[in-house]
Amino acid sequence: MKNINHLSIIDSKFNVDYSNGEIKGKNVINAKKYLKDLPNIFGDEEAFSKIDEDALIYEVQAILPVDEGLEGGLFYGKTIVHPGKVGDEYYMTKGHFHQKIGRAEFYWGIDGEGMLLLMDQDRNTWAEKMIPGSLHYIDGFIAHRTVNTGVKPLSFGACWPSDAGHNYQEIMDNGFSARLEEVHGKPKLIAS
Amino acid sequence: MKNINHLSIIDSKFNVDYSNGEIKGKNVINAKKYLKDLPNIFGDEEAFSKIDEDALIYEVQAILPVDEGLEGGLFYGKTIVHPGKVGDEYYMTKGHFHQKIGRAEFYWGIDGEGMLLLMDQDRNTWAEKMIPGSLHYIDGFIAHRTVNTGVKPLSFGACWPSDAGHNYQEIMDNGFSARLEEVHGKPKLIAS
Repeated sequence: MKNINHLSIIDSKFNVDYSNGEIKGKNVINAKKYLKDLPNIFGDEEAFSKIDEDALIYEVQAILPVDEGLEGGLFYGKTIVHPGKVGDEYYMTKGHFHQKIGRAEFYWGIDGEGMLLLMDQDRNTWAEKMIPGSLHYIDGFIAHRTVNTGVKPLSFGACWPSDAGHNYQEIMDNGFSARLEEVHGKPKLIAS
Repeated sequence: MKNINHLSIIDSKFNVDYSNGEIKGKNVINAKKYLKDLPNIFGDEEAFSKIDEDALIYEVQAILPVDEGLEGGLFYGKTIVHPGKVGDEYYMTKGHFHQKIGRAEFYWGIDGEGMLLLMDQDRNTWAEKMIPGSLHYIDGFIAHRTVNTGVKPLSFGACWPSDAGHNYQEIMDNGFSARLEEVHGKPKLIAS
């Protein structure tokens, strides 16, 4: 079958600004998560109730070149987690296992400072430091959540299989087994 | 099962230098391809025979956190294609379809200038320009090869599924259906 592009030289469909990870191109998905979108995530309910529910906690960009659920494709994204705390607990993403367990993901730190919280299926939780240039392999059986422990936005990139899916419910129901809190001015994992 | 890392904060296992794409960390694979490793790739056999067979054409780094062939894992890599030509044809990589057809890949330009040659299963060939920040989705059914059309090293990053594999043989036997050559000082795809 003849392809209309045969022998042509074209521009890439997408571009990334490596200074902040911003993705440009057609059909880039943009989503924002405000404090009101994150009930039952943070431990300190009183502190939560005192913060403006429209506070922007994190923003996601994603490229989905194929249908979600297709085997063999890949998605690419960028997340910005804004700096801030709810009580002593740093701003963070919802966190999830993949719906199709066993599907891995790469994250790479672009700007700012934070932590990648990881929890295995036995509910052991640990954290990897995220800095510009840090590269993280997230095994397919590990829940993951990112946390901004710094004073400026934490941005990071991601690549994951198009059939991974997101199981947010497990974390909504049972959380991670530890929270990342500021203790004497430093981030510490506290069993919860 | 208790995990030794429970509640600990650790460094990322890998780091990337975004200025040139270099990956640092344990068990990073490094491979170099010299002209002598690339027989039957370039069109001009006479020009090929006149270049030092030890000329370095490209270098690859890769992180393989799981076994090759495992479903659901991901690999991450960086390639540098050095500048140069064999006759009028620019230095380039071998090129391949994935062994497991349907497995996609992302490439992103880091430094230098070049082209991503793409060929579908009907042997239509086209090229996407690679520049710092260009982001390329390579559908799982498309052969791919990279070409340095500039004067300094072309470096780019990649992420692909751990069960994609490489089918180099199809390209070794039948090539792409077009070659990227310098014509009047500019890259042009010439049907071959």
